[in-house]
Amino acid sequence: MLAADVIRAKRDGGALTPGEIRWFVRGVTSGEVGEGEAAAFLMAVFLRGMDDGETAALTDAMMRSGAMLDLSDLPGPKADKHSTGGIGDKTSLVIAPAAAAAGAVVPMISGRGLGHTGGTLDKLEAIPGLRVELPLADLRRQLGTCGLFIAGQTPELCPADRTLYALRDRTSTVESIPLIVASILGKKLAEGLDALVLDVKTGSGAFMRTLPEARALARAMAGAARALGKRAAAVITGMDQPLGRAVGNALEVREAIDVLLGGGPADLGDLCRELGARLLLCAGLCPDLAGGRARHDEVIASGEAAAKFAAMIGVQGGDPRVVEEPSRLPSAPVRAVLEADRTGVLRAVDGVAVGRAAVALGAGRSRPGDRVDPAAGFVFMARLGDRVRAGDPLAEVHASEAARAEAALRALRAAISIGGSDRPPPPLIHEEI
Amino acid sequence: MLAADVIRAKRDGGALTPGEIRWFVRGVTSGEVGEGEAAAFLMAVFLRGMDDGETAALTDAMMRSGAMLDLSDLPGPKADKHSTGGIGDKTSLVIAPAAAAAGAVVPMISGRGLGHTGGTLDKLEAIPGLRVELPLADLRRQLGTCGLFIAGQTPELCPADRTLYALRDRTSTVESIPLIVASILGKKLAEGLDALVLDVKTGSGAFMRTLPEARALARAMAGAARALGKRAAAVITGMDQPLGRAVGNALEVREAIDVLLGGGPADLGDLCRELGARLLLCAGLCPDLAGGRARHDEVIASGEAAAKFAAMIGVQGGDPRVVEEPSRLPSAPVRAVLEADRTGVLRAVDGVAVGRAAVALGAGRSRPGDRVDPAAGFVFMARLGDRVRAGDPLAEVHASEAARAEAALRALRAAISIGGSDRPPPPLIHEEI
Repeated sequence: MLAADVIRAKRDGGALTPGEIRWFVRGVTSGEVGEGEAAAFLMAVFLRGMDDGETAALTDAMMRSGAMLDLSDLPGPKADKHSTGGIGDKTSLVIAPAAAAAGAVVPMISGRGLGHTGGTLDKLEAIPGLRVELPLADLRRQLGTCGLFIAGQTPELCPADRTLYALRDRTSTVESIPLIVASILGKKLAEGLDALVLDVKTGSGAFMRTLPEARALARAMAGAARALGKRAAAVITGMDQPLGRAVGNALEVREAIDVLLGGGPADLGDLCRELGARLLLCAGLCPDLAGGRARHDEVIASGEAAAKFAAMIGVQGGDPRVVEEPSRLPSAPVRAVLEADRTGVLRAVDGVAVGRAAVALGAGRSRPGDRVDPAAGFVFMARLGDRVRAGDPLAEVHASEAARAEAALRALRAAISIGGSDRPPPPLIHEEI
Repeated sequence: MLAADVIRAKRDGGALTPGEIRWFVRGVTSGEVGEGEAAAFLMAVFLRGMDDGETAALTDAMMRSGAMLDLSDLPGPKADKHSTGGIGDKTSLVIAPAAAAAGAVVPMISGRGLGHTGGTLDKLEAIPGLRVELPLADLRRQLGTCGLFIAGQTPELCPADRTLYALRDRTSTVESIPLIVASILGKKLAEGLDALVLDVKTGSGAFMRTLPEARALARAMAGAARALGKRAAAVITGMDQPLGRAVGNALEVREAIDVLLGGGPADLGDLCRELGARLLLCAGLCPDLAGGRARHDEVIASGEAAAKFAAMIGVQGGDPRVVEEPSRLPSAPVRAVLEADRTGVLRAVDGVAVGRAAVALGAGRSRPGDRVDPAAGFVFMARLGDRVRAGDPLAEVHASEAARAEAALRALRAAISIGGSDRPPPPLIHEEI
């Protein structure tokens, strides 16, 4: 086979065979297919698309490009959740331990924040001592003892994605549904899953801004996962404002712990329950969605979910006492409050602007490899649709120094708009695929 | 500027500015724009196209990517001819010396054969001692003394094309009109030309098989050349059978010398006259086309064209006596004659098949860098539309050994079809742009 022939077939709008796709991805991994060939292929896929069968074959080829976790000797269904990323999204920190407490094995490979979206690994690293860069063998062992891990990508899993993802970024071929699906699912399915819940965000703070875009991605992801024999649910959820009240690593861990202990903001708790229930249902751990919700609530009420989180923190080298004593998390020396400058209804929170303000504050990163300040961030006191009066507190800024807090206040003020008329708050869940 | 932004603009179907195009091509040359970015750009251009302004800007950027010949101190118009390549096309060997004899300065950078099409440099190298790989300074000097050169690409001229052409080959982005135009014209115009004649072949043996394809390429090339301030003519000529009677390096040199001396096959002589006349017209060396034809015929009849060819051979280290004594050219030890197997009209000669048979015979190459046998080739005795009787000789094979001659006879037989009914011979010139 010749790379140029595979590229030509896609260039001309043809459907590639699974054999051609497998061969090409293997070549990318081995280096036999060069960077130029890979980039031309990516652009041809971007502009010509891929049908469902090709997308599934590409996902399968990515998944098999390196080692795969074989978890067949562990009792219990293997399940995970993926989110396309948003602002203040700390659901993984709740759902993973809750599902593990309910009997699932949760091998959660996660990522770091970049640009306006945060990353689960950065949040976890706010816990003193906790390590997320762990060898695959250790992670494998941890699943046997603890039932879950949340850790960073290892070099063994899905190497083709590392090569292709870096190339997509440089060649403007990121926003292609088949390429997104294969990248996300290839990595997830290399974890050896039986079941997967997909949270596709839509709205001003999401990667997929509009509902039709989010729907297309959700359908393609659920379709590919099912085509590869996995039980999958995809939910399109709103990202028109930060999820919960906290944005920033330690602040978000604290909020996730609140939810694990039965408290926390309603929207965050509700979304965790809905996603968690679907995870349990796909994993076969409950007969229906209502049973899934009940089981999720049960492991939270009993303290088993929080205990599972503490156990995971301990195995990964962190201080498990943060669960009972959140004051052990890092906290920022400077606080400043953003007050409403007029009376009215909170009409819009520009998620991307909030995410950027968090980056400027040091809570996120603008370039891969930048260090983050675990303590920095925001806590919102008002949500979309709330009536506020001039002078009411809208958000609290947590910062390392006064100048950064001032800059963040200005950025937040620009991100929030207060209007005259009522407006119904956006739904939490838009659609289910 | 970021390569990813330029790629994205083209990916989304936008027109790039001359500044963006110049920046990108400069980056390709310097290595600042990587192979992946260049390949993604090529595929985006392939699938999204470029308008006339972009094509001219890309051509200009390619032309300026390296050194350019500055011939302004030489008297006389600087003119050249380019052909998209065909089988048996030795017109350059006639037109270049004829134009130089008529007063033009002809800095002809040419190429080697690959696949079924031959290359002018391979033909010239059949002349004992002649060198085509010469330093730019020597070529520059040769123009002053002799008025022409025909030589290979030098490293200084159009380096961006070398990088991009190799990448296009590997990434299936060859057959794109803006990319073809920029590659061909960028190299030609770096020669410091005032005038250019473009011979775009169409038919079974051509790169552009159909007339609409050839027309689109001819229009784009002439348009870009004129947009960059050059006088240009483009002619669409037939390549439904080999041009002239000879295919093979020494055999074609011999045939070109026949034409330079006033003889040779009519089709070849006619095409040389038509292209040569347009070259002289674009160069401003004659008032009209009729005057161009007359001037071309004049330098042939006077022997000045043949003398110019001999002079060029001498300066480039070859044996100029081949012009008067063609027996000094290499000749093959084995000859075999292909006879018509039935009576009828010669209806089709599959040019690609003839070209491949020539490669199999050693007269061409299947891979860059392969050595060629200068003496091997074919001489056709019949042309399309000729009535032949069973047993009539159709072609003579010149080979290094009997087995190769036999294989070539079989391949030629399969390439030629003899039918029952008359068919008018195809026109030599289809259209003029």
